[in-house]
Amino acid sequence: MELKYLPTIHSPSDLKKLTYPELDILAEEIRGVLISTVSENGGHLASNLGVVELTIAIHKVFDSPKDSIVWDVGHQSYVHKLLTGRYEDFGTIRTDGGLSGFTRPDESPHDVFLSGHSSTAMSAALGIAQANKLKKNKNYAVAVVGDGAFTGGMVYEAMNNAGRSRTRLITILNNNEMSISPNVGSLARYFAVIRSSPSYFRMKARTENLLNKIPLIGVRLSRGIFHLKTTIKNAIYGSNIFEDFGFRYVGPIDGHNIKQLCTALSGAKSANYPIILHVNTVKGKGYQYAESDPGKFHGISKFNIMTGEPIISAKTYSQEFGDFLRDAAEKDKRICAVTAAMAIGTGLTRFHDDFPDRFYDVGIAEEHAVTFCSGLAKGGMLPVFAVYSTFLQRAYDQIVHDGALQGLKIVLAIDHAGFVGPDGETHHGLLDVPFLNTVPDITVYSPSSFEDLRHCLYRALYKDSGVTAIRYPAGAEVTPPEDFQTTGEFFDLYGEDTDTAVVTYGRTFCFAAYAAREIKKEYGRGVLAVRMTRIKPIDEGLIDVLKTKKKIIFFEEGEKSGGVGELLLEAITEAGFTGVYRLIAIEDKFVEHAGVGALLARYGLDAASIKQTVLRELGIEGNQT
Amino acid sequence: MELKYLPTIHSPSDLKKLTYPELDILAEEIRGVLISTVSENGGHLASNLGVVELTIAIHKVFDSPKDSIVWDVGHQSYVHKLLTGRYEDFGTIRTDGGLSGFTRPDESPHDVFLSGHSSTAMSAALGIAQANKLKKNKNYAVAVVGDGAFTGGMVYEAMNNAGRSRTRLITILNNNEMSISPNVGSLARYFAVIRSSPSYFRMKARTENLLNKIPLIGVRLSRGIFHLKTTIKNAIYGSNIFEDFGFRYVGPIDGHNIKQLCTALSGAKSANYPIILHVNTVKGKGYQYAESDPGKFHGISKFNIMTGEPIISAKTYSQEFGDFLRDAAEKDKRICAVTAAMAIGTGLTRFHDDFPDRFYDVGIAEEHAVTFCSGLAKGGMLPVFAVYSTFLQRAYDQIVHDGALQGLKIVLAIDHAGFVGPDGETHHGLLDVPFLNTVPDITVYSPSSFEDLRHCLYRALYKDSGVTAIRYPAGAEVTPPEDFQTTGEFFDLYGEDTDTAVVTYGRTFCFAAYAAREIKKEYGRGVLAVRMTRIKPIDEGLIDVLKTKKKIIFFEEGEKSGGVGELLLEAITEAGFTGVYRLIAIEDKFVEHAGVGALLARYGLDAASIKQTVLRELGIEGNQT
Repeated sequence: MELKYLPTIHSPSDLKKLTYPELDILAEEIRGVLISTVSENGGHLASNLGVVELTIAIHKVFDSPKDSIVWDVGHQSYVHKLLTGRYEDFGTIRTDGGLSGFTRPDESPHDVFLSGHSSTAMSAALGIAQANKLKKNKNYAVAVVGDGAFTGGMVYEAMNNAGRSRTRLITILNNNEMSISPNVGSLARYFAVIRSSPSYFRMKARTENLLNKIPLIGVRLSRGIFHLKTTIKNAIYGSNIFEDFGFRYVGPIDGHNIKQLCTALSGAKSANYPIILHVNTVKGKGYQYAESDPGKFHGISKFNIMTGEPIISAKTYSQEFGDFLRDAAEKDKRICAVTAAMAIGTGLTRFHDDFPDRFYDVGIAEEHAVTFCSGLAKGGMLPVFAVYSTFLQRAYDQIVHDGALQGLKIVLAIDHAGFVGPDGETHHGLLDVPFLNTVPDITVYSPSSFEDLRHCLYRALYKDSGVTAIRYPAGAEVTPPEDFQTTGEFFDLYGEDTDTAVVTYGRTFCFAAYAAREIKKEYGRGVLAVRMTRIKPIDEGLIDVLKTKKKIIFFEEGEKSGGVGELLLEAITEAGFTGVYRLIAIEDKFVEHAGVGALLARYGLDAASIKQTVLRELGIEGNQT
Repeated sequence: MELKYLPTIHSPSDLKKLTYPELDILAEEIRGVLISTVSENGGHLASNLGVVELTIAIHKVFDSPKDSIVWDVGHQSYVHKLLTGRYEDFGTIRTDGGLSGFTRPDESPHDVFLSGHSSTAMSAALGIAQANKLKKNKNYAVAVVGDGAFTGGMVYEAMNNAGRSRTRLITILNNNEMSISPNVGSLARYFAVIRSSPSYFRMKARTENLLNKIPLIGVRLSRGIFHLKTTIKNAIYGSNIFEDFGFRYVGPIDGHNIKQLCTALSGAKSANYPIILHVNTVKGKGYQYAESDPGKFHGISKFNIMTGEPIISAKTYSQEFGDFLRDAAEKDKRICAVTAAMAIGTGLTRFHDDFPDRFYDVGIAEEHAVTFCSGLAKGGMLPVFAVYSTFLQRAYDQIVHDGALQGLKIVLAIDHAGFVGPDGETHHGLLDVPFLNTVPDITVYSPSSFEDLRHCLYRALYKDSGVTAIRYPAGAEVTPPEDFQTTGEFFDLYGEDTDTAVVTYGRTFCFAAYAAREIKKEYGRGVLAVRMTRIKPIDEGLIDVLKTKKKIIFFEEGEKSGGVGELLLEAITEAGFTGVYRLIAIEDKFVEHAGVGALLARYGLDAASIKQTVLRELGIEGNQT
């Protein structure tokens, strides 16, 4: 497709010059770019296809970056990036050194607020709006929030504070009838009712029709009429949930009609109090495969543009976990599976299909998920919460206060632990080990293979008490060397038992084992590769093995501060260790987006890097690989 | 007062035998015991006085522990404790080895769920209710939730899942028009409207009156009438917020009329779907001082029973912080103060009075608070979030994702760090150091005196960038020895620079310094007492001082796992340290309730214990103190 308008948009001001018919063509151009780029780079497709017109309207009506546009979750910001000077670089999105797949303030002044986790935008935008008010300027703060985010509690905390704040805060509820998975819970139904008709309370359709004769959409509103209408509506209707929280509510608006959107946004601007503007959009709009199965096109890998089929490879840890849990649940009626809107991502599809009564998708509500699991455990069930490492951060207090403190038996199946690749800094799972290390009385496993994963899950379900976490990476298995034999104990040894030990856990062990094998083969020098399977608490037997070593090199795919490497050093020092200790881990920094392989190499955690490090520590100058 | 009934109640079944007039007398007896015991032991008075009749009614109608009563926050469970076999031990509440001031499953089978933090009860009760449903029993799960908890997001996550769950979940909204501080935000107003009249939407008073002719209160309801009434109400009214979430709503009920309460609770039992029963109570009911100033009587120390005046002593860290911040805000118009419903507890009263425009009480909403601060910072303000250590756990992800990752300048003023005493295991501040240690790119200070506190606050406001935390204990200052001079640097030295160093931070330093001084005086042996003021990142100069020591003894009033002691060991080991390292900290356990002094002694952190430990490490047999 020949692009006529998109290449001419270098900033939102260029867009303001276009007519509505031209903007409609621009929308189609953007759709083409989205589909072709995401098919190459992977990323979030359906959500971005859904907000093409909305994003155009926002940038036509508001004056970014003076007005602050805050995108909740940030993965629907691709169109925003295309319209704010990043069209030329768009092909680099989610690649090493390229554009981020989320909003990033250091990427553009138009990316006001960083995001990646859900339900934060209204809190952030309210802060900005309050600052604007204190500074007495007239700028707007605009939060764009999907309906899925309303399954997360933070939104209500923000609404409770924002509703009556008398700030220039405009919240756009982007209602596409689903978050990542089809939306769950009561509010989804409520939204569906509102969405279905301008008369959001069906009982009052007649009054609503009457009110609709007061023009809202299609003409530019005078402030007076706008006020009058909401006042009449409230008086007759009582209120909807947003009005209960003190907002003025406008909508629903057709989210694919740029002119209607601009009219409504302009109307909202004329108010001096917080407004919720309800916009209906269709996720995946304009790409048939994405429209018919938007869940599949939420966050995706590369796919075949003609068929919509993802280009996938081997079995993933998520699938292995899901198969194990489904089979376990068949035998044990106490097992329940809980997910926070990530049923597909965490491999729970089969569990859901076969045991719907014991499957709970709680929405984007990790805090509730953990405490709900505590309740299930209290009631005699065996709950397993499958969650990505980065999102579990939300439930730190609940793990401490509602799980560990009561010693309740909850299994945390932590997916996407370690580097996750292109999703980048908001999504890497580099903190779960450090923050779980701080929680008293819990157990943490970090399997290195599918076989390990199954062992650990079995142990967590039937051997351990209290909160037990099993963490494993995104994607496929890295298999350990074929001559490695797992004992099924809390740690395993591989290689030669010399005075030098290489200690690690998770997939890193596989790399370390290969490195040890190569070093022996190439240089005749043996080292002991130690695989920790249980990383918390540290096994006493392991301390006995390590305390007499002359040199220990610890590799950790996670933040160093509070990680296993530091804890192990303290434990062996207490036991009398006086040798040299080297710790290779992420040093107190956030990690950028790039492929997992590239990141492993960059942070010294792939087989080649581990080999180089060990050779150096052994006093051998290795080949630079 | 002669107690006639209370001593005869050994379990809820004894209570079921009493008549309504006898229960009214019982209520008065309970009030007397509450006031006299809390005046001796300190604790939560106003909230417990408010739920006397409600608790009696719950235990009359439900069958605990078969039915699960889950108390949100748990501090309003004193009456529940008195009615479930703990009257005789009630005088020990909040004392060392005595009853807990919160619900504790290991204390009684009637304490179903442990709690101490807000807004968790509905999530837990829903878990129990779902388990009951899966097990096909007919037991009820009852969550008792204050209106204050509705400022916390978790409640909405739970409501979204509970509303249409078809479980035997009964939620009692205990509306006393305030949480800890007078309730803030939109929902408080909304509740006030509902509370003010049975016709919760005033516009429809006439219809409501008509409906009231269908008997709800005062007669036992048949299930049919109960259903009919809610159905008619919904059809005519639209719905209130609870109904929007899929609950059946009943109320409001007079929370001090036992008979009315029992009738309403029995009606709720007849339903097979989730119900919200709205109960109006008066916080502090029956004790004039508490009724007129319930905020003062929320969580209190011992007080004079005749005047209601607390028996207080010296200036607290909270007050010192509050005074500093108020004065700083006078000079710097960018400074904003944010609290999560703890304005009084964190010392912000003067700030609130003098700068109301820049003061934000966001409700019990720590997650929102941190992200809101990020927004304020983005808008050019200088936000300071004053929060208790234990409650900050709620905002771990927001500190990571919305603060640190963007490098936004937010100051966290962390009060009640370390042991807090009688509030016990849910409230100790023993995790903030470990969990903040895991967060990249942030700064943490732990002052040892008021002078330090002021230095650190100044530095946080005007020298540091990014997220900066200053943590300090509950209560008054422990002053360091008079010959100790602070340099205002990141660490300070005291005593004699020998090959043995005692390293610590916070108030523990004062104890360590006194111990060092006494050892020198009594045994002529000098040790170097090292005070870390900045604990993250660890200062390079400190590493230089310590790396050549022969022996280091580190004392830490916090969890060992992920604490400063472990991080320091790794840092000095990397720098070449090969000496002996002893780390005294809390070893992977939750800490019980007891006085702060008793806990410091028990965990080896008071001056006498530190002295003994150091003497032992020096090879000197000290006097047992």
